[in-house]
Amino acid sequence: MIAEIISCGTELLMGQIVDTNSATLSAELPKLGIDLYFRETVGDNKDRLASVIKKALDRSDIVFTIGGLGPTDDDITKETVAEVTGHTLELNEECLEELKAYFKNSDKHFSLTNYKQVMFPKDAYILKNPIGTAPGCVFEKDGKYVIIMPGPPREFIKMYKEQVVPFLRAKTQGEIIVSRSVKTFGISESLLGEKLKDLTGQTNPTVADYIGDGDIEVRVTAKGASKEECEELLKPTIERIESILGDYIYGYDDDTIPTLVKDLLLNNNLTISLAESCTGGLIAKTLTDYSGISASFLFGAVTYSNFAKMKVLGVKEETLKKHGAVSPETALEMVQGVEKLTGSDVAVSVTGIAGPKSDDTQKPVGLVYLNIYYKGEYHPYKLNLIGSRENIRKRASLTALNEIRKLIS
Amino acid sequence: MIAEIISCGTELLMGQIVDTNSATLSAELPKLGIDLYFRETVGDNKDRLASVIKKALDRSDIVFTIGGLGPTDDDITKETVAEVTGHTLELNEECLEELKAYFKNSDKHFSLTNYKQVMFPKDAYILKNPIGTAPGCVFEKDGKYVIIMPGPPREFIKMYKEQVVPFLRAKTQGEIIVSRSVKTFGISESLLGEKLKDLTGQTNPTVADYIGDGDIEVRVTAKGASKEECEELLKPTIERIESILGDYIYGYDDDTIPTLVKDLLLNNNLTISLAESCTGGLIAKTLTDYSGISASFLFGAVTYSNFAKMKVLGVKEETLKKHGAVSPETALEMVQGVEKLTGSDVAVSVTGIAGPKSDDTQKPVGLVYLNIYYKGEYHPYKLNLIGSRENIRKRASLTALNEIRKLIS
Repeated sequence: MIAEIISCGTELLMGQIVDTNSATLSAELPKLGIDLYFRETVGDNKDRLASVIKKALDRSDIVFTIGGLGPTDDDITKETVAEVTGHTLELNEECLEELKAYFKNSDKHFSLTNYKQVMFPKDAYILKNPIGTAPGCVFEKDGKYVIIMPGPPREFIKMYKEQVVPFLRAKTQGEIIVSRSVKTFGISESLLGEKLKDLTGQTNPTVADYIGDGDIEVRVTAKGASKEECEELLKPTIERIESILGDYIYGYDDDTIPTLVKDLLLNNNLTISLAESCTGGLIAKTLTDYSGISASFLFGAVTYSNFAKMKVLGVKEETLKKHGAVSPETALEMVQGVEKLTGSDVAVSVTGIAGPKSDDTQKPVGLVYLNIYYKGEYHPYKLNLIGSRENIRKRASLTALNEIRKLIS
Repeated sequence: MIAEIISCGTELLMGQIVDTNSATLSAELPKLGIDLYFRETVGDNKDRLASVIKKALDRSDIVFTIGGLGPTDDDITKETVAEVTGHTLELNEECLEELKAYFKNSDKHFSLTNYKQVMFPKDAYILKNPIGTAPGCVFEKDGKYVIIMPGPPREFIKMYKEQVVPFLRAKTQGEIIVSRSVKTFGISESLLGEKLKDLTGQTNPTVADYIGDGDIEVRVTAKGASKEECEELLKPTIERIESILGDYIYGYDDDTIPTLVKDLLLNNNLTISLAESCTGGLIAKTLTDYSGISASFLFGAVTYSNFAKMKVLGVKEETLKKHGAVSPETALEMVQGVEKLTGSDVAVSVTGIAGPKSDDTQKPVGLVYLNIYYKGEYHPYKLNLIGSRENIRKRASLTALNEIRKLIS
């Protein structure tokens, strides 16, 4: 079964919104054995949208549209799909009641324009939206389906998972796809590509690498009649990858370095505290993205100024004068300071030059010193990173977390 | 002149990467008066990629491809474009020299597969890539252009701005488009839509609203023969929007709440310190995204635990016991604590329940207390936010920054 995704909205073509929804949906479809060959983005223009829908219905079995279900006049997706598939829209009383109930429970304002959002074909398969104002629906035409969903990511994801997946499961059968990802950190794409050269030519399973957010993922994908058959196909290839990449591998599938660190801290009852300079709170923010972390996360000091390094962490003025804020000596005193303050099991310091310019010491942009305290010992690291300020901050944070992972696992 | 963007890569269709590049390019094209009607995404499949390129050359004047210029066998964009446009690829000696120099200056590893990246049509218009291994190039066919660029965002953006824009400027002429954005915060989309209902039907300039990352942008776009003519067209509409939306407006165009706060702090020589609980370093991270901020940013305390609230900020145990960590009383003592510690001109505290679950007090998820110290006074705020943990943290951070903006501007 072949699917196609159409993202609707001039805001996408103007580049004001990044299309995360189509990426989310793309990642979900293989789980149902649905192949995706094309995605399109069109603006709020009826003729162009209609032409894209027609083309998609030509070459695919299921067409998903995302967005353009809002209350305003430039939201035209539902009306256009109805036209292309030959359906008439009328007020759906049940949806109207739910919409009114939705507004009653929120501090938002019901307006006449919202009526447009509850117009559907008679007897349509409605996709409910309990957390927003736009329900979706399934249109059928000649045994093919157009499934329309709203654009706000939270609403789209909930509707897809709770309403669309059961519909699709009932429609799909036969061949399935199973993927496993081997997650690596610290190896360049070309070196990795060369090391895996013999494997990337394979057809079942296929092997491909994807540059992630600081890491590289090697995805192995098998097609088969059952989950078990796919797993059998995957096993020897994954073992080969493991023997080739060794320590570059930090995890699998949904593992990320931050989630692994979070789990290691919580499972081992370890407390942590941070002293961040150049990363400016990014490590703290990353760890506190997870709600359970409060049991472990004692304190994060964003000591961006020398004043705070001295006042909060007790870094000596002399050290800052002699070696500078970006030095292994300052990194050590920072981690010692925060460890002393909190008595945490793990403590980390980061100080570096995130750029785009150096400080007055002329040290190179991308020079970063870390120090990690664990079990009575201090572990110093020196990094030479390249890229934008954002990249350097991200990479320094990820490296710190990855080194914590290695120490405590 | 009509353009079309083709994003290449199975990793996009598998949802492993979010396509930020096409959003970036989409936002740039209007500046050159180039219209964008369609975007597509295709996987690493020669036939499907070729069909999409042909279709794009049919209906558009300029076709941009992004991605698929890597060294591995599944990088097929250049080869496919060459085939469709009838060009033969050969080794480009100059590019090879530059590639070798690139590897010499980096810690990366030159491999035989990299040769593929410096194969181009004879006399091709090369787009240099000083920060990566894949140069791009311009292919011509029957007066239309296919412009191929690499996928890594940093390389793509640099190449577009430095190499592609001058090429396009030479090719485009005549009608231009000028857009201005009015940025709002704190108003719902449907209320905004209703308030601007009379304006959204206009044709030149057009008015449309876009939900941003916590805020809503109202974009007014005019077409005309010159920048001056466009500005004349924009003026009365923008004035009407200003009179309708009033205090919901926080800025214009590239303004964001964090950049405005950063500029206000720096221009007024104000220092700032933070005491963050539920936002876990997000406000610190947001402010330190800007390199100049070190002159203002004294210290950020991520006091996620009660222990740190007491130890670092001096919040009283009694206050925590009596009112809880999420209370106006704790917020006040947090901001007092950090202000006392640093003596900063502005100090902010945030404490709340980011979810997905409440703490043991049964206070509702989304309840957040802020307190902002400025000019000897403490300003308390209470927020009831909805959405995911991520949304609540973002929204709390943005609200804190927006209130700082209002106080110090």
